[in-house]
Amino acid sequence: MAQHNAFYAQSGGVTAVINASACGVIEACRRHSDQIGKVYAGHNGIIGALTEDLIDVSEESDEAIAALRHTPAGAFGSCRYKLKDIETHRAQYERLIEVFKAHDIRYFFYNGGGDSADTCLKVSQLSEKMGYPLTAIHVPKTVDNDLPITDNSPGFGSVAKYIATSTLEASLDIASMCATSTKVFVLEVMGRHAGWIAAAGALAGDKEGDAPHLVIFPEVAFDRAAVMARVEQSVKDYGYCVIVVSEGARYEDGTFLADSGNTDAFGHRQLGGVAPTLAGMVKQDLGYKYHWAVADYLQRAARHLASKTDVDQAYAVGEKAVELALAGDNAKMPAIKRTGDAPYTWTVEAAPLAEVANREKFMPRDFIREDGFGITEECRRYLSPLIQGEDFPPFENGLPQIAHLAKHRVERKLPEFSI
Amino acid sequence: MAQHNAFYAQSGGVTAVINASACGVIEACRRHSDQIGKVYAGHNGIIGALTEDLIDVSEESDEAIAALRHTPAGAFGSCRYKLKDIETHRAQYERLIEVFKAHDIRYFFYNGGGDSADTCLKVSQLSEKMGYPLTAIHVPKTVDNDLPITDNSPGFGSVAKYIATSTLEASLDIASMCATSTKVFVLEVMGRHAGWIAAAGALAGDKEGDAPHLVIFPEVAFDRAAVMARVEQSVKDYGYCVIVVSEGARYEDGTFLADSGNTDAFGHRQLGGVAPTLAGMVKQDLGYKYHWAVADYLQRAARHLASKTDVDQAYAVGEKAVELALAGDNAKMPAIKRTGDAPYTWTVEAAPLAEVANREKFMPRDFIREDGFGITEECRRYLSPLIQGEDFPPFENGLPQIAHLAKHRVERKLPEFSI
Repeated sequence: MAQHNAFYAQSGGVTAVINASACGVIEACRRHSDQIGKVYAGHNGIIGALTEDLIDVSEESDEAIAALRHTPAGAFGSCRYKLKDIETHRAQYERLIEVFKAHDIRYFFYNGGGDSADTCLKVSQLSEKMGYPLTAIHVPKTVDNDLPITDNSPGFGSVAKYIATSTLEASLDIASMCATSTKVFVLEVMGRHAGWIAAAGALAGDKEGDAPHLVIFPEVAFDRAAVMARVEQSVKDYGYCVIVVSEGARYEDGTFLADSGNTDAFGHRQLGGVAPTLAGMVKQDLGYKYHWAVADYLQRAARHLASKTDVDQAYAVGEKAVELALAGDNAKMPAIKRTGDAPYTWTVEAAPLAEVANREKFMPRDFIREDGFGITEECRRYLSPLIQGEDFPPFENGLPQIAHLAKHRVERKLPEFSI
Repeated sequence: MAQHNAFYAQSGGVTAVINASACGVIEACRRHSDQIGKVYAGHNGIIGALTEDLIDVSEESDEAIAALRHTPAGAFGSCRYKLKDIETHRAQYERLIEVFKAHDIRYFFYNGGGDSADTCLKVSQLSEKMGYPLTAIHVPKTVDNDLPITDNSPGFGSVAKYIATSTLEASLDIASMCATSTKVFVLEVMGRHAGWIAAAGALAGDKEGDAPHLVIFPEVAFDRAAVMARVEQSVKDYGYCVIVVSEGARYEDGTFLADSGNTDAFGHRQLGGVAPTLAGMVKQDLGYKYHWAVADYLQRAARHLASKTDVDQAYAVGEKAVELALAGDNAKMPAIKRTGDAPYTWTVEAAPLAEVANREKFMPRDFIREDGFGITEECRRYLSPLIQGEDFPPFENGLPQIAHLAKHRVERKLPEFSI
């Protein structure tokens, strides 16, 4: 078989294990050097492809690539940049094909969430129309766990483990202090539209009285009186109350509890500050002393506490992407398929991108407890396997070791292109 | 030698390793069962002694006690309760002695920060006056690292490791995203009066351009224009800017950047919300997209990422406390003495409580860089050894295992006492 090059790019918010997927893609490409020549990575995601700013991954040592497995965030740079619809901005899609053609790229691996699955599908469709032989594979990633078909989205399991562990640890702290000091602790977690990450906080406890005592989901309309009644009851019963609240918590009318008023490049509202807002309500309505934490980037970058299951799956979907590409299985996403709960078993299978793009997976209503403040046993059965196992990175001088890449740039062959 | 009982209590804000000190005290007591009969722990700290609410630690299994070494927070309950001055509230001190007498307690181990060192000293002095033979030992603990004499305060090294690691991980995240998204990340850390924890954030990088690009200390008057100029320069030079800011950051006139207006039981102002305040300034003055995190209890409860050095020292001071008590070395604190920097070597020696109580150790001015936004090499040499080594707890079902104590109560022998 003739040798052609591959292109890999990272898209959207990064995770603790997106580089593990990069590692899976690159190592698999290296094992197939008879078919795949060079691997080029987009510097800052798809923007790197549009502007012909390509990193020659072939120049990186095996050691550096192996270290990607335990390095959080996007080693090649990611971006929040959504290609516009193909009818009005066809030039961008054509440019991608031109860049691929100029560098003999026949394999396109796009590592991201729902938006990038959509882009990947469109690139695939256009290349077909233009008669350019490209195999486009979407490698799933998102801490939000909102990709359809796949059992879970790589990146989510590690955030889930971090949030469950942090909730457990912080709850021991407040339990120690509550007799004379803090009575209510609020932890704000990510999850704009879906409460998956908040639900993971509930894994911290499984017995009556265990923290968290309330989980506040975006899926359940925020009712201040009901929440405060529950907080008061928890303080009366257990001496304290631990709340895990999603950044996407909202009122019945859809207004977010904390809306900073800013929007990101995708037009999503930029949120933040639910925890202090909620803590303020507790103080105002009940008078309890409170503490609050906002984990923000710490939760999705916390490779030091990654779930081994998640790392393994992130690597496996990267590896499988290359397998699919080499089989010419175009416009697919390697999806994780759960084959057993206890013990958790899984395989990776190809899902058609047309069924993935622009579909969000929400929490099933029966994953949320009747009262709206916790998870059901069914949800626990789903979530628990995803946080299993530890995969601590090597440490050096007290800190996690990270990959150091040379990032040699590929010589440009085309005229400039402004985005 | 005759057998008498011991009393142990935890005081003030808890840490990831205060239970490791408890473990050190209790295991050492068990090894000296010829001299020390029962170990009683105060339920919720010194309040447990005042109210005669004592936990019979002798009833706990060896396994449960061993598990304290890897369990964060205060397993017996801590409290924010400062005994008033001895002249006006002599009754409280006398009550302590009465309780000790009633339960044949001759060894008093008080595990806390500066305030509890003071209490410990006063109890020792009063027992002497009252002719009751008590040996009072203060076991050092505080994430604030503000205890004098000792090289560092057990609890601090683990927060330092957590903050340095989190700063490193989050900085990789923002570095991945900054081309098209977040340009400034602000991490708020604890440290009301002293910038020790903020300084630890600086361990995340050691080369020009490495994050954090600014550390904001309570010791350096906050100058908005100077800070913003530095943020802008960092974004221009590196594409992004990571800021570690102490909760105690304040203006020239002493006003805190974020002052919630509440005070705790010790009369300290309750702080919080510096990160969003600072992030708001960045948006207002420079227009950059930002993210912010407030680690709060997560940082001091993060036993999953404890420093092995810190765990070892926390255990060692607990062990040494018993040794001092058995030698009748009254009114002392086991202090860590640094005997070498590279490799870091240390011993534990007795420091007189009179020299410890009510003295705060501030950051030496020469630990803060000339420009006020980072640490010096001297500071790095001091801090770096404290985060060395990992001591991951055992995990079970994806979460850290914690000690489960039976907490059998000791039968009361005295009339009630209201505090």
